[in-house]
Amino acid sequence: MAASQRLLVDEEEVSNANRKFYAALHALDLSLMAQAWAHEDWVKCLHPGWDLLVGWAEVRESWEKIFRSTDQMMVSVSRALVHVAGDTAWVSCLENITTTFQNDFSTALVEATNIFQRRQGRWLMVHHHTTPLAQPPPDASVPLQ
Amino acid sequence: MAASQRLLVDEEEVSNANRKFYAALHALDLSLMAQAWAHEDWVKCLHPGWDLLVGWAEVRESWEKIFRSTDQMMVSVSRALVHVAGDTAWVSCLENITTTFQNDFSTALVEATNIFQRRQGRWLMVHHHTTPLAQPPPDASVPLQ
Repeated sequence: MAASQRLLVDEEEVSNANRKFYAALHALDLSLMAQAWAHEDWVKCLHPGWDLLVGWAEVRESWEKIFRSTDQMMVSVSRALVHVAGDTAWVSCLENITTTFQNDFSTALVEATNIFQRRQGRWLMVHHHTTPLAQPPPDASVPLQ
Repeated sequence: MAASQRLLVDEEEVSNANRKFYAALHALDLSLMAQAWAHEDWVKCLHPGWDLLVGWAEVRESWEKIFRSTDQMMVSVSRALVHVAGDTAWVSCLENITTTFQNDFSTALVEATNIFQRRQGRWLMVHHHTTPLAQPPPDASVPLQ
């Protein structure tokens, strides 16, 4: 396979790994989330409003806590920019998240950097860094129904 | 050189590249900043409060704008965690930033992810993602002088 074709295949694989991570988040499924991550003591995760977590034990515990305190999470991902460098890759993407809990809901637009490493042919997340972005106020010209 | 020794050397080199980036920021020096980055159309930068910038032209322009609108910037970096994977590496660190402009100043505690790539033996920044962290309120028990 030519190098350029190989790169396209790698990028598609990384995109799939990124989608699998968000599918786990959307499903609030700890088992799927565990499959998406490398279980290393140096992986890192920065959730919105949290301090940096280091190591799979801490990261796993955080997902467990988030999933337990959430009734439903709707995540749509846009503008995913993939860069592959050998067996390491990273994705910059926008997360549109709506979270519901006890009849209340919140929405957030979040910029994410997700780093993956290829292990035995599988791309696993090793770094997840999020930043909530300032959102424009609702358009007041749209009449409420 | 043994692999473990090589890794230590690589980590030290990446730490140095990270320090050089912050030295450029501290000095408000666009030439030093240009030396710290890879000049590629896919490098990315998320400044606090900005949208994602893509490509060296946009990133360079942002630093020029920031440096022009800043009188002085004091940056101290702490808790730098370096991970090297071949010719790619990333650093998670805390930036303590005090910025002064027109006799006013602001402080921020920022979590950063900095990705570097090795090119002809030099580690260059290819990705800079920042998140301002919530800071605890000032300790009210400390009497003001």
